[in-house]
Amino acid sequence: MPVYLIGAGPGDPELITLKAVNILNKADVVMYDKLANEKILEHAPNAKLIYVGKKAGEHYKSQDEINKIIVNESKDNPNGNIVRLKGGDPFVFGRGGEEILDLIKENISFKIIPGVTSAIGAPASVGLPITHRAVATSFTVVTGHEDPTKNKKQVKWDYTADTIIVLMGIGNMKENTTEMMKYRDPKTPACVIENGTLENEKIIFGTLENIADKKINTPAILVVGNVVDVFKEIKDRN
Amino acid sequence: MPVYLIGAGPGDPELITLKAVNILNKADVVMYDKLANEKILEHAPNAKLIYVGKKAGEHYKSQDEINKIIVNESKDNPNGNIVRLKGGDPFVFGRGGEEILDLIKENISFKIIPGVTSAIGAPASVGLPITHRAVATSFTVVTGHEDPTKNKKQVKWDYTADTIIVLMGIGNMKENTTEMMKYRDPKTPACVIENGTLENEKIIFGTLENIADKKINTPAILVVGNVVDVFKEIKDRN
Repeated sequence: MPVYLIGAGPGDPELITLKAVNILNKADVVMYDKLANEKILEHAPNAKLIYVGKKAGEHYKSQDEINKIIVNESKDNPNGNIVRLKGGDPFVFGRGGEEILDLIKENISFKIIPGVTSAIGAPASVGLPITHRAVATSFTVVTGHEDPTKNKKQVKWDYTADTIIVLMGIGNMKENTTEMMKYRDPKTPACVIENGTLENEKIIFGTLENIADKKINTPAILVVGNVVDVFKEIKDRN
Repeated sequence: MPVYLIGAGPGDPELITLKAVNILNKADVVMYDKLANEKILEHAPNAKLIYVGKKAGEHYKSQDEINKIIVNESKDNPNGNIVRLKGGDPFVFGRGGEEILDLIKENISFKIIPGVTSAIGAPASVGLPITHRAVATSFTVVTGHEDPTKNKKQVKWDYTADTIIVLMGIGNMKENTTEMMKYRDPKTPACVIENGTLENEKIIFGTLENIADKKINTPAILVVGNVVDVFKEIKDRN
Protein backbone atom coordinates (compact mmCIF):
# COMPACT_ATOMS: atom_id res chain seq x y z
CA MET A 1 0.00 0.00 0.00
CA PRO A 2 1.28 3.48 -0.75
CA VAL A 3 1.48 6.07 2.01
CA TYR A 4 -1.13 8.72 1.27
CA LEU A 5 -0.28 12.40 1.66
CA ILE A 6 -3.68 14.02 1.77
CA GLY A 7 -4.75 17.65 1.59
CA ALA A 8 -7.55 18.38 4.11
CA GLY A 9 -8.64 21.62 2.44
CA PRO A 10 -8.73 25.25 3.53
CA GLY A 11 -10.79 25.13 6.73
CA ASP A 12 -14.46 24.31 6.15
CA PRO A 13 -14.50 20.57 6.94
CA GLU A 14 -16.79 19.97 3.96
CA LEU A 15 -14.12 21.30 1.59
CA ILE A 16 -12.25 18.01 1.71
CA THR A 17 -12.38 15.77 -1.38
CA LEU A 18 -14.41 12.56 -1.67
CA LYS A 19 -11.16 10.76 -2.43
CA ALA A 20 -9.61 11.93 0.83
CA VAL A 21 -12.70 10.84 2.78
CA ASN A 22 -12.72 7.41 1.14
CA ILE A 23 -9.08 6.83 2.07
CA LEU A 24 -9.54 8.17 5.62
CA ASN A 25 -12.49 5.78 6.11
CA LYS A 26 -10.10 2.86 5.72
CA ALA A 27 -7.09 4.43 7.42
CA ASP A 28 -5.15 2.51 10.05
CA VAL A 29 -2.85 5.40 10.97
CA VAL A 30 -3.38 9.15 10.49
CA MET A 31 -0.55 11.58 11.19
CA TYR A 32 -1.99 15.09 11.25
CA ASP A 33 -1.05 18.71 11.71
CA LYS A 34 -2.97 21.40 13.46
CA LEU A 35 -6.14 21.31 11.33
CA ALA A 36 -8.58 24.17 10.89
CA ASN A 37 -11.27 21.74 11.98
CA GLU A 38 -10.70 18.46 13.77
CA LYS A 39 -14.09 17.16 12.57
CA ILE A 40 -12.13 15.89 9.59
CA LEU A 41 -10.63 13.21 11.83
CA GLU A 42 -14.12 11.73 12.29
CA HIS A 43 -13.74 10.31 8.77
CA ALA A 44 -11.09 7.98 10.19
CA PRO A 45 -12.92 6.21 13.02
CA ASN A 46 -10.59 3.19 13.18
CA ALA A 47 -7.27 4.92 12.83
CA LYS A 48 -4.50 5.48 15.33
CA LEU A 49 -4.26 9.29 15.40
CA ILE A 50 -0.84 10.84 15.77
CA TYR A 51 -0.48 14.60 16.18
CA VAL A 52 2.73 15.81 14.54
CA GLY A 53 1.87 19.50 14.25
CA LYS A 54 3.89 22.46 15.26
CA LYS A 55 2.53 24.83 17.83
CA ALA A 56 2.95 28.54 17.13
CA GLY A 57 5.98 29.91 18.92
CA GLU A 58 6.85 26.52 20.32
CA HIS A 59 8.92 24.16 18.20
CA TYR A 60 6.92 21.02 18.72
CA LYS A 61 8.44 18.65 16.18
CA SER A 62 11.05 19.40 13.55
CA GLN A 63 10.37 18.47 9.93
CA ASP A 64 13.07 15.79 10.21
CA GLU A 65 11.30 14.28 13.21
CA ILE A 66 7.98 14.30 11.34
CA ASN A 67 9.60 12.62 8.33
CA LYS A 68 10.99 9.91 10.63
CA ILE A 69 7.60 9.29 12.25
CA ILE A 70 6.01 8.86 8.81
CA VAL A 71 8.74 6.44 7.71
CA ASN A 72 8.55 4.45 10.94
CA GLU A 73 4.76 4.15 10.92
CA SER A 74 4.91 3.03 7.29
CA LYS A 75 7.49 0.37 8.09
CA ASP A 76 5.53 -0.81 11.14
CA ASN A 77 2.36 -1.22 9.05
CA PRO A 78 3.51 -2.44 5.64
CA ASN A 79 0.01 -3.60 4.69
CA GLY A 80 -1.82 -0.81 6.50
CA ASN A 81 -3.49 2.30 5.19
CA ILE A 82 -1.13 5.02 6.29
CA VAL A 83 -2.20 8.64 5.94
CA ARG A 84 -0.31 11.88 6.35
CA LEU A 85 -3.04 14.54 6.60
CA LYS A 86 -2.23 18.21 6.04
CA GLY A 87 -4.26 21.41 5.99
CA GLY A 88 -4.75 22.85 2.50
CA ASP A 89 -2.74 21.06 -0.19
CA PRO A 90 0.37 18.95 0.58
CA PHE A 91 2.52 20.69 -2.03
CA VAL A 92 1.46 24.31 -1.50
CA PHE A 93 3.94 25.20 1.25
CA GLY A 94 2.96 21.95 2.96
CA ARG A 95 6.52 20.54 2.88
CA GLY A 96 5.11 17.42 1.26
CA GLY A 97 8.16 17.37 -1.01
CA GLU A 98 10.47 16.87 1.95
CA GLU A 99 8.31 14.08 3.32
CA ILE A 100 8.25 12.16 0.04
CA LEU A 101 12.02 12.47 -0.34
CA ASP A 102 12.42 10.54 2.91
CA LEU A 103 9.87 7.92 1.80
CA ILE A 104 11.74 7.50 -1.50
CA LYS A 105 15.04 6.97 0.34
CA GLU A 106 13.34 4.09 2.14
CA ASN A 107 11.74 2.71 -1.03
CA ILE A 108 8.27 3.33 0.36
CA SER A 109 5.69 4.15 -2.30
CA PHE A 110 3.39 7.12 -1.89
CA LYS A 111 0.46 8.87 -3.49
CA ILE A 112 -0.51 12.55 -3.16
CA ILE A 113 -4.19 13.45 -2.84
CA PRO A 114 -4.48 17.16 -3.64
CA GLY A 115 -6.64 19.47 -1.58
CA VAL A 116 -8.16 22.91 -1.96
CA THR A 117 -5.46 25.36 -0.85
CA SER A 118 -6.55 28.38 1.19
CA ALA A 119 -4.82 30.53 -1.47
CA ILE A 120 -7.70 29.66 -3.80
CA GLY A 121 -10.40 28.53 -1.37
CA ALA A 122 -10.48 31.63 0.84
CA PRO A 123 -10.90 34.18 -1.99
CA ALA A 124 -13.54 31.94 -3.62
CA SER A 125 -15.46 31.64 -0.38
CA VAL A 126 -15.76 35.42 -0.01
CA GLY A 127 -16.59 35.79 -3.72
CA LEU A 128 -13.30 37.38 -4.79
CA PRO A 129 -12.17 36.23 -8.26
CA ILE A 130 -8.37 35.88 -8.29
CA THR A 131 -8.47 35.86 -12.09
CA HIS A 132 -10.87 38.07 -13.99
CA ARG A 133 -11.13 38.92 -17.66
CA ALA A 134 -9.19 42.05 -18.61
CA VAL A 135 -8.06 42.52 -14.98
CA ALA A 136 -6.06 39.43 -13.97
CA THR A 137 -4.76 36.71 -16.28
CA SER A 138 -2.17 35.43 -13.80
CA PHE A 139 -1.69 35.03 -10.08
CA THR A 140 1.28 34.28 -7.86
CA VAL A 141 1.10 32.44 -4.57
CA VAL A 142 4.00 33.06 -2.22
CA THR A 143 4.90 32.29 1.36
CA GLY A 144 5.21 35.35 3.57
CA HIS A 145 7.18 33.35 6.07
CA GLU A 146 10.42 32.57 4.29
CA ASP A 147 12.59 29.67 5.37
CA PRO A 148 14.72 31.41 8.05
CA THR A 149 17.80 29.43 7.03
CA LYS A 150 17.66 30.94 3.53
CA ASN A 151 19.64 34.05 2.70
CA LYS A 152 16.97 36.74 2.96
CA LYS A 153 18.67 38.94 0.39
CA GLN A 154 17.88 36.39 -2.31
CA VAL A 155 14.17 36.86 -1.79
CA LYS A 156 12.70 39.63 -3.89
CA TRP A 157 9.09 40.72 -3.93
CA ASP A 158 9.12 41.73 -7.58
CA TYR A 159 6.34 39.36 -8.61
CA THR A 160 4.84 40.52 -11.87
CA ALA A 161 1.61 38.49 -11.90
CA ASP A 162 -1.62 40.48 -11.81
CA THR A 163 -2.77 39.06 -8.44
CA ILE A 164 -0.43 38.22 -5.55
CA ILE A 165 -1.61 35.92 -2.76
CA VAL A 166 0.56 35.73 0.34
CA LEU A 167 0.14 32.78 2.71
CA MET A 168 1.52 32.68 6.25
CA GLY A 169 2.55 36.30 5.97
CA ILE A 170 0.52 38.16 8.60
CA GLY A 171 3.41 38.33 11.07
CA ASN A 172 5.73 39.80 8.42
CA MET A 173 3.12 41.85 6.56
CA LYS A 174 4.68 45.28 7.15
CA GLU A 175 8.07 44.08 5.91
CA ASN A 176 6.59 42.18 2.96
CA THR A 177 4.31 44.99 1.76
CA THR A 178 7.18 47.48 2.09
CA GLU A 179 9.26 45.24 -0.17
CA MET A 180 6.36 44.85 -2.63
CA MET A 181 5.99 48.64 -2.86
CA LYS A 182 9.46 48.81 -4.45
CA TYR A 183 7.89 47.15 -7.50
CA ARG A 184 4.18 47.98 -7.31
CA ASP A 185 2.10 51.12 -6.79
CA PRO A 186 1.47 51.71 -3.05
CA LYS A 187 -2.16 52.45 -3.98
CA THR A 188 -2.63 48.93 -5.35
CA PRO A 189 -5.81 47.49 -3.83
CA ALA A 190 -5.23 44.82 -1.19
CA CYS A 191 -7.34 42.84 1.22
CA VAL A 192 -6.91 40.36 4.01
CA ILE A 193 -9.23 37.38 4.37
CA GLU A 194 -9.43 36.10 7.95
CA ASN A 195 -10.64 32.57 8.68
CA GLY A 196 -11.41 31.97 5.01
CA THR A 197 -14.14 29.34 4.33
CA LEU A 198 -15.05 29.19 8.04
CA GLU A 199 -18.26 30.63 9.47
CA ASN A 200 -16.41 33.60 10.97
CA GLU A 201 -14.62 34.52 7.74
CA LYS A 202 -14.03 38.24 7.34
CA ILE A 203 -12.59 40.58 4.73
CA ILE A 204 -10.56 43.69 5.50
CA PHE A 205 -9.93 46.09 2.64
CA GLY A 206 -7.01 48.45 2.15
CA THR A 207 -4.11 49.18 -0.16
CA LEU A 208 -0.56 47.91 -0.34
CA GLU A 209 0.60 50.89 1.73
CA ASN A 210 -1.94 50.64 4.57
CA ILE A 211 -3.15 47.03 4.80
CA ALA A 212 -0.39 46.10 7.28
CA ASP A 213 -1.70 48.75 9.70
CA LYS A 214 -5.13 47.12 10.04
CA LYS A 215 -6.04 44.93 12.99
CA ILE A 216 -5.88 41.38 11.71
CA ASN A 217 -6.48 38.02 13.33
CA THR A 218 -4.89 34.81 12.07
CA PRO A 219 -5.27 32.54 10.20
CA ALA A 220 -5.44 35.00 7.35
CA ILE A 221 -4.18 35.49 3.82
CA LEU A 222 -3.27 38.66 1.93
CA VAL A 223 -4.49 39.33 -1.63
CA VAL A 224 -2.94 42.18 -3.65
CA GLY A 225 -4.08 43.35 -7.07
CA ASN A 226 -6.75 45.15 -9.06
CA VAL A 227 -9.21 42.24 -8.71
CA VAL A 228 -9.68 43.43 -5.12
CA ASP A 229 -11.18 46.67 -6.44
CA VAL A 230 -13.57 44.90 -8.81
CA PHE A 231 -14.70 42.87 -5.84
CA LYS A 232 -14.96 45.86 -3.49
CA GLU A 233 -17.22 47.54 -6.01
CA ILE A 234 -19.38 44.41 -6.03
CA LYS A 235 -19.59 44.40 -2.23
CA ASP A 236 -20.34 48.14 -2.11
CA ARG A 237 -23.21 47.77 -4.55
CA ASN A 238 -24.97 45.19 -2.41
CA MET B 1 -31.49 30.30 -2.11
CA PRO B 2 -28.16 31.45 -3.52
CA VAL B 3 -27.00 30.24 -6.91
CA TYR B 4 -24.02 27.96 -6.35
CA LEU B 5 -20.94 28.22 -8.55
CA ILE B 6 -19.17 24.95 -7.91
CA GLY B 7 -15.71 23.73 -8.84
CA ALA B 8 -15.81 20.11 -10.01
CA GLY B 9 -12.09 19.52 -9.56
CA PRO B 10 -9.24 18.65 -11.92
CA GLY B 11 -10.46 15.46 -13.59
CA ASP B 12 -10.60 12.47 -11.26
CA PRO B 13 -14.31 12.43 -10.32
CA GLU B 14 -13.37 11.65 -6.71
CA LEU B 15 -11.45 14.94 -6.47
CA ILE B 16 -14.68 16.89 -5.95
CA THR B 17 -15.39 18.25 -2.47
CA LEU B 18 -17.96 16.84 -0.06
CA LYS B 19 -19.60 20.26 -0.02
CA ALA B 20 -20.07 20.18 -3.80
CA VAL B 21 -21.54 16.68 -3.63
CA ASN B 22 -23.97 17.66 -0.86
CA ILE B 23 -25.24 20.62 -2.90
CA LEU B 24 -25.47 18.59 -6.13
CA ASN B 25 -27.54 15.93 -4.30
CA LYS B 26 -30.25 18.53 -3.74
CA ALA B 27 -29.85 20.39 -7.03
CA ASP B 28 -32.86 21.23 -9.16
CA VAL B 29 -30.89 22.65 -12.07
CA VAL B 30 -27.25 22.03 -13.03
CA MET B 31 -25.63 24.07 -15.78
CA TYR B 32 -22.34 22.43 -16.70
CA ASP B 33 -19.35 22.75 -18.99
CA LYS B 34 -17.45 20.05 -20.73
CA LEU B 35 -16.32 18.08 -17.66
CA ALA B 36 -13.30 15.80 -17.48
CA ASN B 37 -15.67 13.13 -16.23
CA GLU B 38 -19.46 13.19 -16.54
CA LYS B 39 -19.77 10.76 -13.60
CA ILE B 40 -19.89 13.90 -11.49
CA LEU B 41 -23.39 14.55 -12.80
CA GLU B 42 -24.56 11.33 -11.09
CA HIS B 43 -24.42 13.28 -7.82
CA ALA B 44 -27.38 15.32 -9.09
CA PRO B 45 -29.98 12.62 -9.87
CA ASN B 46 -33.00 14.93 -9.70
CA ALA B 47 -31.63 17.94 -11.53
CA LYS B 48 -32.45 19.33 -14.93
CA LEU B 49 -29.07 19.16 -16.69
CA ILE B 50 -28.18 21.97 -19.07
CA TYR B 51 -24.99 21.76 -21.12
CA VAL B 52 -23.53 25.24 -21.63
CA GLY B 53 -19.99 24.26 -22.58
CA LYS B 54 -17.94 25.43 -25.48
CA LYS B 55 -16.71 22.92 -28.01
CA ALA B 56 -13.09 23.30 -29.12
CA GLY B 57 -12.90 25.17 -32.41
CA GLU B 58 -16.66 25.65 -32.51
CA HIS B 59 -18.14 28.59 -30.66
CA TYR B 60 -20.99 26.83 -28.95
CA LYS B 61 -22.23 29.47 -26.53
CA SER B 62 -20.73 32.86 -25.78
CA GLN B 63 -19.99 33.85 -22.19
CA ASP B 64 -22.81 36.41 -22.43
CA GLU B 65 -25.23 33.70 -23.48
CA ILE B 66 -24.11 31.47 -20.59
CA ASN B 67 -24.54 34.34 -18.14
CA LYS B 68 -28.08 34.89 -19.44
CA ILE B 69 -28.97 31.20 -19.08
CA ILE B 70 -27.77 31.24 -15.45
CA VAL B 71 -29.77 34.38 -14.69
CA ASN B 72 -32.91 33.04 -16.38
CA GLU B 73 -32.77 29.66 -14.67
CA SER B 74 -32.29 31.40 -11.33
CA LYS B 75 -35.31 33.65 -11.94
CA ASP B 76 -37.43 30.71 -13.10
CA ASN B 77 -36.61 28.75 -9.91
CA PRO B 78 -36.40 31.34 -7.13
CA ASN B 79 -36.70 28.69 -4.43
CA GLY B 80 -34.75 26.02 -6.29
CA ASN B 81 -31.22 24.77 -5.84
CA ILE B 82 -29.45 26.21 -8.86
CA VAL B 83 -25.93 25.03 -9.63
CA ARG B 84 -23.36 26.28 -12.11
CA LEU B 85 -20.78 23.46 -12.27
CA LYS B 86 -17.31 24.11 -13.70
CA GLY B 87 -14.20 22.01 -14.17
CA GLY B 88 -11.40 22.89 -11.73
CA ASP B 89 -12.10 25.99 -9.65
CA PRO B 90 -14.63 28.68 -10.70
CA PHE B 91 -12.18 31.56 -10.21
CA VAL B 92 -9.02 30.03 -11.71
CA PHE B 93 -9.64 31.04 -15.32
CA GLY B 94 -13.19 29.73 -14.96
CA ARG B 95 -14.79 33.11 -15.76
CA GLY B 96 -16.80 32.80 -12.57
CA GLY B 97 -16.20 36.52 -11.98
CA GLU B 98 -18.14 37.42 -15.12
CA GLU B 99 -21.00 35.13 -14.16
CA ILE B 100 -21.36 36.62 -10.69
CA LEU B 101 -21.32 40.17 -12.08
CA ASP B 102 -24.45 39.34 -14.06
CA LEU B 103 -26.08 37.72 -11.01
CA ILE B 104 -25.30 40.84 -8.97
CA LYS B 105 -26.87 43.10 -11.58
CA GLU B 106 -30.06 41.08 -11.14
CA ASN B 107 -29.85 41.09 -7.34
CA ILE B 108 -29.49 37.31 -7.27
CA SER B 109 -27.38 36.03 -4.39
CA PHE B 110 -24.62 33.51 -5.00
CA LYS B 111 -22.05 31.37 -3.22
CA ILE B 112 -18.79 30.01 -4.62
CA ILE B 113 -17.72 26.47 -3.73
CA PRO B 114 -14.01 26.22 -4.52
CA GLY B 115 -12.55 23.19 -6.24
CA VAL B 116 -9.12 21.67 -6.76
CA THR B 117 -7.65 23.43 -9.79
CA SER B 118 -5.66 21.31 -12.26
CA ALA B 119 -2.79 23.79 -11.72
CA ILE B 120 -2.32 22.25 -8.28
CA GLY B 121 -4.07 18.89 -8.65
CA ALA B 122 -2.19 17.62 -11.69
CA PRO B 123 1.34 18.19 -10.30
CA ALA B 124 0.26 16.70 -6.96
CA SER B 125 -1.16 13.63 -8.64
CA VAL B 126 2.13 12.85 -10.40
CA GLY B 127 4.10 13.62 -7.22
CA LEU B 128 5.65 16.91 -8.37
CA PRO B 129 5.93 19.48 -5.55
CA ILE B 130 5.25 22.96 -6.98
CA THR B 131 6.82 24.46 -3.86
CA HIS B 132 9.86 22.89 -2.25
CA ARG B 133 12.18 24.11 0.47
CA ALA B 134 15.20 25.99 -0.89
CA VAL B 135 14.00 25.44 -4.48
CA ALA B 136 10.59 27.11 -4.85
CA THR B 137 8.95 29.49 -2.38
CA SER B 138 6.50 30.93 -4.91
CA PHE B 139 4.53 29.82 -7.95
CA THR B 140 2.63 31.65 -10.66
CA VAL B 141 -0.39 30.27 -12.47
CA VAL B 142 -1.10 31.86 -15.84
CA THR B 143 -3.38 31.22 -18.78
CA GLY B 144 -1.58 30.32 -21.97
CA HIS B 145 -4.63 31.28 -23.96
CA GLU B 146 -4.93 35.01 -23.55
CA ASP B 147 -8.21 36.81 -24.11
CA PRO B 148 -8.00 37.45 -27.88
CA THR B 149 -9.68 40.84 -27.50
CA LYS B 150 -6.85 42.04 -25.24
CA ASN B 151 -3.89 43.90 -26.72
CA LYS B 152 -1.31 41.12 -26.97
CA LYS B 153 1.57 43.54 -26.50
CA GLN B 154 0.48 44.15 -22.92
CA VAL B 155 1.10 40.53 -22.00
CA LYS B 156 4.63 39.83 -20.85
CA TRP B 157 6.00 36.47 -19.76
CA ASP B 158 8.43 37.97 -17.25
CA TYR B 159 7.02 36.08 -14.28
CA THR B 160 9.57 35.98 -11.51
CA ALA B 161 8.08 33.26 -9.30
CA ASP B 162 10.16 30.11 -8.87
CA THR B 163 7.60 27.81 -10.51
CA ILE B 164 5.40 28.78 -13.46
CA ILE B 165 2.29 26.75 -14.26
CA VAL B 166 0.60 27.43 -17.59
CA LEU B 167 -3.01 26.32 -18.10
CA MET B 168 -4.72 26.11 -21.47
CA GLY B 169 -1.43 26.83 -23.19
CA ILE B 170 -0.64 23.74 -25.25
CA GLY B 171 -1.81 25.31 -28.52
CA ASN B 172 0.39 28.37 -27.97
CA MET B 173 3.27 26.60 -26.24
CA LYS B 174 5.97 27.45 -28.80
CA GLU B 175 5.06 31.13 -28.70
CA ASN B 176 4.72 31.20 -24.92
CA THR B 177 7.99 29.39 -24.16
CA THR B 178 9.81 31.62 -26.66
CA GLU B 179 8.52 34.65 -24.77
CA MET B 180 9.48 33.11 -21.41
CA MET B 181 13.06 32.51 -22.66
CA LYS B 182 13.50 36.29 -22.89
CA TYR B 183 13.42 36.30 -19.08
CA ARG B 184 14.47 32.81 -18.04
CA ASP B 185 17.32 30.44 -18.91
CA PRO B 186 16.36 28.24 -21.93
CA LYS B 187 17.78 25.28 -19.98
CA THR B 188 15.23 25.74 -17.19
CA PRO B 189 13.61 22.36 -16.49
CA ALA B 190 10.05 22.02 -17.75
CA CYS B 191 7.46 19.28 -18.00
CA VAL B 192 4.01 18.73 -19.38
CA ILE B 193 1.41 16.75 -17.47
CA GLU B 194 -1.21 15.21 -19.75
CA ASN B 195 -4.59 14.14 -18.34
CA GLY B 196 -3.53 15.02 -14.80
CA THR B 197 -5.34 13.06 -12.03
CA LEU B 198 -6.93 10.71 -14.59
CA GLU B 199 -5.90 7.08 -15.02
CA ASN B 200 -4.03 7.86 -18.22
CA GLU B 201 -2.04 10.75 -16.75
CA LYS B 202 1.43 11.10 -18.23
CA ILE B 203 4.50 13.30 -17.71
CA ILE B 204 6.77 14.51 -20.48
CA PHE B 205 10.07 16.07 -19.44
CA GLY B 206 12.10 18.70 -21.23
CA THR B 207 13.44 22.21 -20.89
CA LEU B 208 12.01 25.60 -21.68
CA GLU B 209 13.73 25.52 -25.08
CA ASN B 210 12.57 22.07 -26.21
CA ILE B 211 9.34 21.20 -24.39
CA ALA B 212 7.19 22.73 -27.14
CA ASP B 213 8.70 20.31 -29.67
CA LYS B 214 7.43 17.21 -27.84
CA LYS B 215 4.31 15.38 -28.94
CA ILE B 216 1.62 16.37 -26.46
CA ASN B 217 -2.03 15.45 -26.11
CA THR B 218 -4.56 17.71 -24.42
CA PRO B 219 -5.79 18.36 -21.79
CA ALA B 220 -2.36 19.17 -20.45
CA ILE B 221 -0.57 21.74 -18.34
CA LEU B 222 2.99 23.05 -18.51
CA VAL B 223 5.19 23.37 -15.41
CA VAL B 224 8.45 25.36 -15.61
CA GLY B 225 11.05 25.66 -12.86
CA ASN B 226 13.77 23.91 -10.91
CA VAL B 227 11.26 21.80 -8.96
CA VAL B 228 10.89 19.77 -12.15
CA ASP B 229 14.51 18.67 -11.82
CA VAL B 230 14.15 17.68 -8.16
CA PHE B 231 11.20 15.59 -9.23
CA LYS B 232 12.93 14.09 -12.29
CA GLU B 233 15.74 12.95 -10.00
CA ILE B 234 13.12 11.31 -7.78
CA LYS B 235 11.56 9.51 -10.74
CA ASP B 236 14.95 8.45 -12.09
CA ARG B 237 15.93 6.93 -8.76
CA ASN B 238 12.89 4.69 -8.68
